[in-house]
Amino acid sequence: MARIPVAVIGATGMVGQRIIAMLDGHPQFELHEVASSARTAGKRYGAAATWRVPSAMPDGVGGLQLKEGGSRLDSSVVFSAMPAGPATAIERGYAADGKIVVSNSSSYRMDPRVPLVIPEVNADHLHLVRCQGTPGGIVTNCNCAAMFMTMALAPLHRRYGIEAVQVTTMQAVSGAGYPGVASLDILGNVFPLPKEEEKMERETQKMLGTVAEGVVTPAAFPVSAQCQRVPVEDGHTETVAVRLTGNPDAAEVAATLRDFRGMPQEQGLHSAPARPIEVFEQDDRPQPRLDANRHAGMTASVGRIRACPVLTVKMLVLGHNLMRGAAAAAMLNAEALLAMDLLPA
Amino acid sequence: MARIPVAVIGATGMVGQRIIAMLDGHPQFELHEVASSARTAGKRYGAAATWRVPSAMPDGVGGLQLKEGGSRLDSSVVFSAMPAGPATAIERGYAADGKIVVSNSSSYRMDPRVPLVIPEVNADHLHLVRCQGTPGGIVTNCNCAAMFMTMALAPLHRRYGIEAVQVTTMQAVSGAGYPGVASLDILGNVFPLPKEEEKMERETQKMLGTVAEGVVTPAAFPVSAQCQRVPVEDGHTETVAVRLTGNPDAAEVAATLRDFRGMPQEQGLHSAPARPIEVFEQDDRPQPRLDANRHAGMTASVGRIRACPVLTVKMLVLGHNLMRGAAAAAMLNAEALLAMDLLPA
Amino acid sequence: MARIPVAVIGATGMVGQRIIAMLDGHPQFELHEVASSARTAGKRYGAAATWRVPSAMPDGVGGLQLKEGGSRLDSSVVFSAMPAGPATAIERGYAADGKIVVSNSSSYRMDPRVPLVIPEVNADHLHLVRCQGTPGGIVTNCNCAAMFMTMALAPLHRRYGIEAVQVTTMQAVSGAGYPGVASLDILGNVFPLPKEEEKMERETQKMLGTVAEGVVTPAAFPVSAQCQRVPVEDGHTETVAVRLTGNPDAAEVAATLRDFRGMPQEQGLHSAPARPIEVFEQDDRPQPRLDANRHAGMTASVGRIRACPVLTVKMLVLGHNLMRGAAAAAMLNAEALLAMDLLPA
Amino acid sequence: MARIPVAVIGATGMVGQRIIAMLDGHPQFELHEVASSARTAGKRYGAAATWRVPSAMPDGVGGLQLKEGGSRLDSSVVFSAMPAGPATAIERGYAADGKIVVSNSSSYRMDPRVPLVIPEVNADHLHLVRCQGTPGGIVTNCNCAAMFMTMALAPLHRRYGIEAVQVTTMQAVSGAGYPGVASLDILGNVFPLPKEEEKMERETQKMLGTVAEGVVTPAAFPVSAQCQRVPVEDGHTETVAVRLTGNPDAAEVAATLRDFRGMPQEQGLHSAPARPIEVFEQDDRPQPRLDANRHAGMTASVGRIRACPVLTVKMLVLGHNLMRGAAAAAMLNAEALLAMDLLPA
Repeated sequence: MARIPVAVIGATGMVGQRIIAMLDGHPQFELHEVASSARTAGKRYGAAATWRVPSAMPDGVGGLQLKEGGSRLDSSVVFSAMPAGPATAIERGYAADGKIVVSNSSSYRMDPRVPLVIPEVNADHLHLVRCQGTPGGIVTNCNCAAMFMTMALAPLHRRYGIEAVQVTTMQAVSGAGYPGVASLDILGNVFPLPKEEEKMERETQKMLGTVAEGVVTPAAFPVSAQCQRVPVEDGHTETVAVRLTGNPDAAEVAATLRDFRGMPQEQGLHSAPARPIEVFEQDDRPQPRLDANRHAGMTASVGRIRACPVLTVKMLVLGHNLMRGAAAAAMLNAEALLAMDLLPA
Repeated sequence: MARIPVAVIGATGMVGQRIIAMLDGHPQFELHEVASSARTAGKRYGAAATWRVPSAMPDGVGGLQLKEGGSRLDSSVVFSAMPAGPATAIERGYAADGKIVVSNSSSYRMDPRVPLVIPEVNADHLHLVRCQGTPGGIVTNCNCAAMFMTMALAPLHRRYGIEAVQVTTMQAVSGAGYPGVASLDILGNVFPLPKEEEKMERETQKMLGTVAEGVVTPAAFPVSAQCQRVPVEDGHTETVAVRLTGNPDAAEVAATLRDFRGMPQEQGLHSAPARPIEVFEQDDRPQPRLDANRHAGMTASVGRIRACPVLTVKMLVLGHNLMRGAAAAAMLNAEALLAMDLLPA
Repeated sequence: MARIPVAVIGATGMVGQRIIAMLDGHPQFELHEVASSARTAGKRYGAAATWRVPSAMPDGVGGLQLKEGGSRLDSSVVFSAMPAGPATAIERGYAADGKIVVSNSSSYRMDPRVPLVIPEVNADHLHLVRCQGTPGGIVTNCNCAAMFMTMALAPLHRRYGIEAVQVTTMQAVSGAGYPGVASLDILGNVFPLPKEEEKMERETQKMLGTVAEGVVTPAAFPVSAQCQRVPVEDGHTETVAVRLTGNPDAAEVAATLRDFRGMPQEQGLHSAPARPIEVFEQDDRPQPRLDANRHAGMTASVGRIRACPVLTVKMLVLGHNLMRGAAAAAMLNAEALLAMDLLPA
Repeated sequence: MARIPVAVIGATGMVGQRIIAMLDGHPQFELHEVASSARTAGKRYGAAATWRVPSAMPDGVGGLQLKEGGSRLDSSVVFSAMPAGPATAIERGYAADGKIVVSNSSSYRMDPRVPLVIPEVNADHLHLVRCQGTPGGIVTNCNCAAMFMTMALAPLHRRYGIEAVQVTTMQAVSGAGYPGVASLDILGNVFPLPKEEEKMERETQKMLGTVAEGVVTPAAFPVSAQCQRVPVEDGHTETVAVRLTGNPDAAEVAATLRDFRGMPQEQGLHSAPARPIEVFEQDDRPQPRLDANRHAGMTASVGRIRACPVLTVKMLVLGHNLMRGAAAAAMLNAEALLAMDLLPA
């Protein structure tokens, strides 16, 4: 069967590179075009990008000529790893042009008509992509820190009902892209990230919310986020405490997380892990160095599930910010759209 | 006036070294003896210890001959920076021998007759040192992570009443001593510290508790701690959320912290900072690299005080784990004991 | 064709784990037994070892029961990743018992009858394994820092003749095993490694030496090594300057390195990279973070080849200390032994 | 006696801040003016600069209003910590205006009429400041990496004669200023610094050269530098090998370094250390974490002095790149100029 040709815009950045790496050997999508900023347009990809993925650059990619983001593209499916600033106009333009934009950018995440989706959590929101009043549409994935907490909260909200959430993040530097964080701000340091906090709070509520009449109504429970950057290359670590209706104990919560499956597992999507959540028993796990890469970086690792004397349970959550937290989140959204027949013919 | 001769046991470790550095030029105490493990007993201090304090080793210290911890000491005041294991018998022995042991060890922290003291918070507990049924007595300071949170909580508990506390720590490697943490466990990593959590929870409750009939009754509010080690050399960073009676707003809480003073400030103790808490206005402070050393490492730095959608307020708390979190905590306790006339004549 | 059953001793350490990972799916060797220290003997491998390889532990390994190093083994081929202390007696014992020991330990590296081999460099030395006066024999690979410099020097020595070498190393912490380096010695630090220097100097000379009458005579040129540990997880970086007979220019040296091939490439050994040396043109490469993993960690990366105003040329050399620098060095030695028909039938 | 009012231009950067810190309590110079880029001109210093010096910002500095570098200044002595680009025109302008510019910038370091000075090494070059054909003059200090090697080489050149030098650097991130190095380029990495190498080579030769007829003639021996950045905050570490006339042994070289004194020691300059070089006996010293701050960061730490099988001796050299390597280098130059009566009346 012919693979669907796709474009990657924001292709030279760290997330764009990971999307390109995932497209190598993908059974359904095929890299057809790459685009980036005006500064690099016209250059060959191999000359313009410093490749930062641990695996080798796929054959054929280095020779592709970069287009300028926003310029005419052949592909009807566009992966966007653009920074939020330029993404706003460019993504809207492609949607007006009839393309489906599968975006990792923050520009439209909180637009109530734009689905903000983790396929295991709220694949049903994806139908909104056809209700945006444009020939095409935009689908987004969440902030890399909101991702892993929301994956861990979703089965708890479904089964018990969440009443309140406290989260503290210890985020990796690769989440800030390149050049990103100054080394003097992070070597031997913990750096506050005030702007991440509202994103985590609101995006979590939106993903656990409900769709009606073409818009998402966010969940009502309060989320309180305290975000920091730490000197870790890859892998966001999060301490999460949650108050649950009915006050289940830690063992029951652990079982609920372990049993969690969603649409990607049921439909056998190509990039889906066998289980979205891996629960650890050891009391010193998960850790980013040992666990961020588990299952190709597609799972949320959850450990230290125990009673919380203030809320109901607390736990340690970890995931690979560049994979399931960004590039692979977009890829899985695209695969879900295809499985739901929501991509252009 | 003659300075009081003191002994430092556990003198070669990181905390012992800091105590020795603080004794240099101290107006009231004078280093008279050093002791350590059997392994180094008999050696000269300068040969047995790798000096890790940023300032130079004080004159005269390198030539002192190390005694074995537990052996006969001349001094009636003993600073203990022994590991918890050997400290249990050794500290009890010195107390039985009539000495006042000012300890940083965890052995007796939760003994209800042993005062666990931050002089700004609960100097009144120090009187317990005379009620332990031995000729001498033991005074302790808390775990380095409990220290800064408790300093920030004390004025809030006094003014409003605390109903619940959530804390996540990001602790420095120097808190684990030398050799301490393996580099493979911490370079580019976040490492869970399960055993620190109960200490933080219970020690905080004890310090904010009340004394009656010769024992401490801990405060009743729940504390939920989630502790991690991060690749930071010095300075423990903590995200703290607290539910307060009466629901004060963030500005009022900030003012309460800023105005906090205690016995060390009132009495002008030698090592006391002008203010125990420094409140930051910038939304990217405090940070360990920039702020752990402020005011000679004697203050708790508090920033990002803001409303918490789950509890009442949340904030970022930081302090120097080896100074106010350990060595200087013991030193200030000794100065408070002296000011309260609780040291041997 | 049946795979040869092999044992891995020192199986729980970082190098042992990498050997086990390389055996997964190996076409010629099959993991049959694992052994470690007396402390873990009898435990299941999955319970005794904290798995630190980025890929998942191969199926079936976790359930293997650990034997004690030195005890009876079925396999006639033994990979040894034991520490030098216990390795001395244990490896000798297995060789006396008729086994071929393919060792990463330093115990026998400088024994003139024991081949110290990089198959691209001195595969001919492997014949010594049959001349050690025991039913079996010992083959070793070099120190992880000597490896990459020697790979880069070998084609230059062959073509021009080396007259003198200066090298400074910046070595990764994984080279010291676990727990290895204390975090306080390496976070934000550069730590001298005096004991590595003589190893680098002498092992390089031995590998570039000649075999006659059953012993190796080392090359005569002087090597001067200055070794340090730096806060890098994986990948040893080395600045190398070399005086060459005939004074070739940098471009010619680069071409010589680029063209280098050896027995593993000619024979198509399973773990051999297509080219043992990758030459970089960019003036900011190689770097451990970007390049240590290239070609499965099997190559020496060489860049910045340029004239040296003191010797002839200088260059920056890098390789993965746990792969080609240790585990994969042993594996390639075993594959070379098999290709040369030097393994037990 | 009245202190000489001085200006600091480039005052908000890391070196500028250190100069300001050193002026606090200085007996001869007094901070009168601060200047920086157009972007911050007009702002109060305390609002424009993130203070990164471990000690507190001196009283009174926070309220100073920043001028624009190049604008009119009252002071006749100007410390320049400007980046090389803008420094070129600005420093020339102030010299034309009659001021003495004591510069840390690289703009004029290799100008043969501009003295490039370490007062212990070549204070006699300072007279060139009056021979530049302008009413004022420019004095520079060297690159932070050239500093420590040259301090160690100077007494050897004086006593034996240097024939060749090989150096590899492992440089701290603070040497690149703020924001400087991207964290993804340095966390767990070693990053090549090609542009530093020629500076190290040529500046060393110039400082060890001779003055005649108003210009410096550099020393003729070859220097070969290989420069890297490592994940260290403060302190440049260097492996140095040197060929010396007469082939002295390591013990003699160590004694020569230990005995080294220069004009700052003889004249008792305020910022001068008692000895410019501290020689270590331990084989694991110096290390940046333990030793960069020794003697207020004013000394070169030298250890591991031993025979080199290729040249004559090799050693490990370390110093604080922001102190003696930059800010304090300028300060000591200013003190030397004053002592030599070369500052404007």
